[in-house]
Amino acid sequence: MTPTPPPPAVILLSGGLDSTTVLAIAKAQGYAPYALSFRYGQRHEQELRAAEAVVARMGVQRHVVATIDLREFGGSALTADIAVPKGRSGPEMSHGIPVTYVPARNTVFLSFALAWAETLGASDIFVGVNALDYSGYPDCRPEYIAAFEALARLATKAGVEGSQRLKIHAPLMHWNKARIIQEGLALGVDYALTSSCYDPAEDGRPCGECDACALRAKGFAEAGQADPLLVRHGLA
Amino acid sequence: MTPTPPPPAVILLSGGLDSTTVLAIAKAQGYAPYALSFRYGQRHEQELRAAEAVVARMGVQRHVVATIDLREFGGSALTADIAVPKGRSGPEMSHGIPVTYVPARNTVFLSFALAWAETLGASDIFVGVNALDYSGYPDCRPEYIAAFEALARLATKAGVEGSQRLKIHAPLMHWNKARIIQEGLALGVDYALTSSCYDPAEDGRPCGECDACALRAKGFAEAGQADPLLVRHGLA
Repeated sequence: MTPTPPPPAVILLSGGLDSTTVLAIAKAQGYAPYALSFRYGQRHEQELRAAEAVVARMGVQRHVVATIDLREFGGSALTADIAVPKGRSGPEMSHGIPVTYVPARNTVFLSFALAWAETLGASDIFVGVNALDYSGYPDCRPEYIAAFEALARLATKAGVEGSQRLKIHAPLMHWNKARIIQEGLALGVDYALTSSCYDPAEDGRPCGECDACALRAKGFAEAGQADPLLVRHGLA
Repeated sequence: MTPTPPPPAVILLSGGLDSTTVLAIAKAQGYAPYALSFRYGQRHEQELRAAEAVVARMGVQRHVVATIDLREFGGSALTADIAVPKGRSGPEMSHGIPVTYVPARNTVFLSFALAWAETLGASDIFVGVNALDYSGYPDCRPEYIAAFEALARLATKAGVEGSQRLKIHAPLMHWNKARIIQEGLALGVDYALTSSCYDPAEDGRPCGECDACALRAKGFAEAGQADPLLVRHGLA
């Protein structure tokens, strides 16, 4: 008897804490991971270097970095020349839509993941969206993910022919940052490789002041752990 | 009183017969058109030259050509090195999914249109999909378009805040090619500018043998019109 090969899955991997945890979860669930990152006009390449370091450490079937440029459309602090807000705390962050919102970003990213899944014959896409920490982002909510899954099942050849029932896995959806960190540590994730900061230094040192740094710090504090990224940069 | 400015709309424009007709319809309906084309790894650039000629003639607020590369994922005759099928007739063409299918293409294209619509504050996206001539393409069906519209309303900041009720217009959905041509001609469309062929010569001369050429020829014949593109190339 030949063993059944592990099923392929496309994992959206930004190189951040959340998507790296998702990659570890997909591997632990027995999927053969195909990691998909984007060069999308973000102002820093640190995120991509982190994704490459994560992939090198954890191992994947293949890593594709797709280039897309949302800057042509204008929009948000992550892609345009608007200052990243700093020094905000919980209540400020959770009011309304953050300026760091990128238009239709998850729709664009998931559509690329769907294209790759289709050519791989993969029925599974993993994405690290989270409804708690990112309550201001409309495309991080469960109803959005359900709508994309419904779309995906209508969009593809295999979906229509019934050979592929596409599933969007969002395992972090209802976890807080502390739980995400705890689950990832239990799976052996090295968070020193990951990058969350919206405005990191050239060497990857996080600014410590943006919303993403604040969320990450709160998560490690609640998990009762030191952030190995801060340790690596001599910040903790 | 200042007149109300025309509402902005994003028009997916391939430079083909269908999307050019859609641009004319959107203009006739009073929208200020923002035309969006893609350099997506198609083997010929003729399509983009046609889109540029159409835009130059018809006028738009702005034309963006976004670059995306689906070739990294492998897949179809339009983007990979698989021969374009030629000399097929109606029944052959309408059986199953054509080899010229690009994985998740309309999902990718519509997601970019959504990103631009959001930054423009536009509530309207026009797309030239058609359920009759392209029955083999899952993402050209009314239920697919309805699913994308549902997704779009959940995906965006403005959708969530209720200031933007996004609509996907697919005015050609139930028209046959002859009717599309007749409506376009009535609106003054110059079809000599458009390109439909999957495998055109360097000067834009259509091959006359691929499925797209066959569909187009049948449409003009049924509309009782000569195809001005063939006239231009001395082929009719």
